[in-house]
Amino acid sequence: MDQRLCVIGPGLIGCSFTLALKAAGFRGHVVGCSRSQETLDTAQSNGAIDSGNTDVAVAVEDADVVMVTVPMMATAKVLLDMRDALKPEAIITDGGSVKGSFIAEARDILADHLDRFVPGHPIAGREKSGAAAATADLFEKKRVLLTPLAETSSEATALVSKLWSMTGAAVETLDPVVHDRVLAATSHLPHVVAYALVDLLATKQEHEEIFRYAAGGFADFTRIASSDPAMWRDICLTNGTEIDRVVGDLVKNLQRFQTMVQQRDGEALFDAFGRAKETRDKHTVKLSHTPEPASVSDSS
Amino acid sequence: MDQRLCVIGPGLIGCSFTLALKAAGFRGHVVGCSRSQETLDTAQSNGAIDSGNTDVAVAVEDADVVMVTVPMMATAKVLLDMRDALKPEAIITDGGSVKGSFIAEARDILADHLDRFVPGHPIAGREKSGAAAATADLFEKKRVLLTPLAETSSEATALVSKLWSMTGAAVETLDPVVHDRVLAATSHLPHVVAYALVDLLATKQEHEEIFRYAAGGFADFTRIASSDPAMWRDICLTNGTEIDRVVGDLVKNLQRFQTMVQQRDGEALFDAFGRAKETRDKHTVKLSHTPEPASVSDSS
Repeated sequence: MDQRLCVIGPGLIGCSFTLALKAAGFRGHVVGCSRSQETLDTAQSNGAIDSGNTDVAVAVEDADVVMVTVPMMATAKVLLDMRDALKPEAIITDGGSVKGSFIAEARDILADHLDRFVPGHPIAGREKSGAAAATADLFEKKRVLLTPLAETSSEATALVSKLWSMTGAAVETLDPVVHDRVLAATSHLPHVVAYALVDLLATKQEHEEIFRYAAGGFADFTRIASSDPAMWRDICLTNGTEIDRVVGDLVKNLQRFQTMVQQRDGEALFDAFGRAKETRDKHTVKLSHTPEPASVSDSS
Repeated sequence: MDQRLCVIGPGLIGCSFTLALKAAGFRGHVVGCSRSQETLDTAQSNGAIDSGNTDVAVAVEDADVVMVTVPMMATAKVLLDMRDALKPEAIITDGGSVKGSFIAEARDILADHLDRFVPGHPIAGREKSGAAAATADLFEKKRVLLTPLAETSSEATALVSKLWSMTGAAVETLDPVVHDRVLAATSHLPHVVAYALVDLLATKQEHEEIFRYAAGGFADFTRIASSDPAMWRDICLTNGTEIDRVVGDLVKNLQRFQTMVQQRDGEALFDAFGRAKETRDKHTVKLSHTPEPASVSDSS
């Protein structure tokens, strides 16, 4: 494959994507675009990009594929900046955690280009961020969810799918509304809960003892509260409707469990805990981080 | 050390305790007590006990130390059964996750014996349970919290502390009320939340997708929902007042976070997430499962 690939926002995700592609035999030119020359220098020195430019309109010129991996609150500006410089056949994709807001922006800004628009979300990451933290194996055996629109051509989806498959990821397609609803439940809600729990405990009178005597289960449970606050603010702002709904659902369920505790209803508690354990155990295989190989057919 | 040690309920905790003691040079006789002859046979065959008896009153005869590691809803019956058979100088200790309820039972049943009563709680465990899952290293570098009463003699506390130290644990003493409050926050609350979250997601229309697309963070966050339902029912029944309080606190805090999401208040979300991350990061060392060596002085 020798397409010209442009990565706007060459950080952890964007650079890991191109490093993986290059490791898998991608022979095209990769241009990186960032407002920060330092980011471009880092990305170029670790081999993730072949050249860099701080101007979006210049960077996307002649690009066959544009990968947008900037913070989600910055994507609209990026789409605006690239609009008049894209060549007509250029494919646009991204790596954001929320799809609905990015799609709404594209419908507004790139309305003539939607057949080449393939939103995507790699379910992968690590604690460090930035180009310097990028690795060629970040997506190996991870899932990548593509959420093409009704307008998106199957060729565009197939090409993006092919690129992600080269990184070792298992690619699947999903309706964007379902994506945002499902991720609200599995990812966004747990993060909000972990942040809210740590926030609560930090304000308690016994907080020194609380963190002193916390053991393994607590460490696992709250690990995600160490995630990047800016990224999670953006996720809450862009997927607010779904997150609001599912936080409300959890509050209701917690109140139901609280009532069982108040009433010392051992039978109801045992039944509820047992059903939850059964569900968690049944899905343990699915949660073991090793999805099956790509299921979307490739055409190239 | 050559005391006679009686373990009532020789399961994972009780047998790991005696295996660790024996590995550390304990030379006394260990008698196990269980209603199940099969449990006694398993514990004896893996070397955790030297002899077994199904009758509590017989098992505790001549015992210098009695370790109670039965399910928490069964402790009152055990205390009643041992009351008239204990020798006056016998020390009673336990391994339960909640201290207040066990202490209340002891005040009721063993009122004449409180100077020899040393409630304890090893913060350790594993997914498997039972005598067959016991290992000599279960408590290595783990914390054991002792919650002696005002009536407890310092000699009794020191002896129990010495035994736990021999297992490789870091022993600390704590007020029992503080213990139950702190553990409600760090352990009981996360378990209730994990159970309530998995229960909620299992009932959602998209539950197949939810578990299909859940990634690493979710797996960590919900691992504790695979814990033993009977044990967690008992914890909710015995520490209900503290758990009710802290679940209510978390519900209020979640509603506060929900309001920030509803109002798309990016600044407040960023501040709250940032403070939580700072707290979590600051305490990461404390959460790394390697407490410092025993801080309670030993007298023997």
